[in-house]
Amino acid sequence: MSNGKKADSQTVYFRSADFPSGGFLFKNRVRIAPNDRGFMFADGLYEVVRSYGGRFFGFAEHLARLRHSLAEVGIDFPEIGELPGIAQELVRRNGLETTAAVAYIQLTRGLCERRYPFPTPPVVPTLYIEVNRLLSAAVEAEQGIAAITVPDIRWSRCDIKWLGLLPNVLARQRAVAQGANEAIFVRDGVVTEGTHTNVFGVKAGVVLTHPSDHHILAGITRAQVIQLCRALRLPVEERPILQAELAGLDELFLTSTTGEITPVVVLDSKPVGRGRPGPLTQQLQRAFRDLISSLSQGD
Amino acid sequence: MSNGKKADSQTVYFRSADFPSGGFLFKNRVRIAPNDRGFMFADGLYEVVRSYGGRFFGFAEHLARLRHSLAEVGIDFPEIGELPGIAQELVRRNGLETTAAVAYIQLTRGLCERRYPFPTPPVVPTLYIEVNRLLSAAVEAEQGIAAITVPDIRWSRCDIKWLGLLPNVLARQRAVAQGANEAIFVRDGVVTEGTHTNVFGVKAGVVLTHPSDHHILAGITRAQVIQLCRALRLPVEERPILQAELAGLDELFLTSTTGEITPVVVLDSKPVGRGRPGPLTQQLQRAFRDLISSLSQGD
Repeated sequence: MSNGKKADSQTVYFRSADFPSGGFLFKNRVRIAPNDRGFMFADGLYEVVRSYGGRFFGFAEHLARLRHSLAEVGIDFPEIGELPGIAQELVRRNGLETTAAVAYIQLTRGLCERRYPFPTPPVVPTLYIEVNRLLSAAVEAEQGIAAITVPDIRWSRCDIKWLGLLPNVLARQRAVAQGANEAIFVRDGVVTEGTHTNVFGVKAGVVLTHPSDHHILAGITRAQVIQLCRALRLPVEERPILQAELAGLDELFLTSTTGEITPVVVLDSKPVGRGRPGPLTQQLQRAFRDLISSLSQGD
Repeated sequence: MSNGKKADSQTVYFRSADFPSGGFLFKNRVRIAPNDRGFMFADGLYEVVRSYGGRFFGFAEHLARLRHSLAEVGIDFPEIGELPGIAQELVRRNGLETTAAVAYIQLTRGLCERRYPFPTPPVVPTLYIEVNRLLSAAVEAEQGIAAITVPDIRWSRCDIKWLGLLPNVLARQRAVAQGANEAIFVRDGVVTEGTHTNVFGVKAGVVLTHPSDHHILAGITRAQVIQLCRALRLPVEERPILQAELAGLDELFLTSTTGEITPVVVLDSKPVGRGRPGPLTQQLQRAFRDLISSLSQGD
């Protein structure tokens, strides 16, 4: 993501114990203190919300997921309802009303001396939000991408949208080094999800995806695609795809807020199905685009 | 850890892409950029090194471990040899030459736009170092502490001293909420380690501790204690302690850079052995103190 702006002209939102009133400021004016628990412990969470032509999609669902993450890690953030308004204002201040954009929202437990237990009394959580222009992923959506499989070495609470992304970074880097775009995690012989995507397979006309549990993030686009399957009367099963089943899948695709629905046409250097985006994947892509168009037109 | 100084009078060391020359400055002048990969991805590492009366202990071993962590995550930091000199200078500048102190060293992959793959070309790693006065843990060392067991939900590369400490924070908080001082992780029925400590058990005169593999950090004090066992001709076995064995242990203790050797006298609200520090634990504590004394005297 990039908005093509330098840090000295991009407006972001920031609030912290050092700046408790919070406010809009240029990105290069934001000062994260070294003792921010986000910096020292990855003691924080994030969300990524997409806007289409200035209108955010699924913000309520993103906030519900953020509430889940907050509750699971014990961060109190009663101001959560302010987030859509701040993100909308950032769209306006950065001139992104007529383009695809993405809000990155990061929240940490706040600033205190380095010790593991929660600060007592609680401190002001640190809030950082930036909105960036989203580069087009039309080529990937149309032609599909290559992916690799990697061992899922992450923690066992991937339902929490946690800042601790080094395992994802390492997996993604491994994909890039092998000329692929995404890495798909395999844990105990089953496909869980990608580094920033959920994974769907198609076999004999049935759409398959890992159930929503502690080993995957409950993706907003994932849920939307399951709903679309039901609306289109495509059989869909929330059950793990076995690693051993991968080679026999007819279609494979990824879902994410930024990439929507992306076909995987090569996996571990071998073609998936016929090596091009499959018919069910394309049907779901069309349905998803129609859904977005209807929203943009004010339905 | 605390040095009793406010951020506006504590001198720390900082270097980043925004401040590539690096230098000593007051803590409240350090500005971590929001796009630092340490803040957004926990894409970084740390070390904690202890000094006794102005003299660091085991710095070479800490650097060797940091080299391992750096290699495993693909961060290039050729300036690693500068760290002891910087830490020593921070001891001097903060007037900590005659006390117990601890250097906290944090290194991140650096500053770039938010995207998972490594920046190309690589950017300057962010380096942050602070040295704090270490509060005395004499009471804990003498009387022992209470601990609880918790499921080990962490990633499977705990040999890397990674910033992603939220699982440790949550476990430690759970211990505190139950009136205990430390949480001990149990994975697949075996004790791995504590949230910031290695775990040793004693059964029928044999000292037991988890082998050094991907599920624990290779603690510097852990290695030192194993060496002391050998020097004292105490039988020591690096093999996992089963969760089922915990109730039958004669002694249980923790090792760490900051706490050295800490007896656990209560585990999950039940006494360990006779409910007070055991004889082998005490023997090892004395041997460790002798080792430190000999070092402080210039051996």
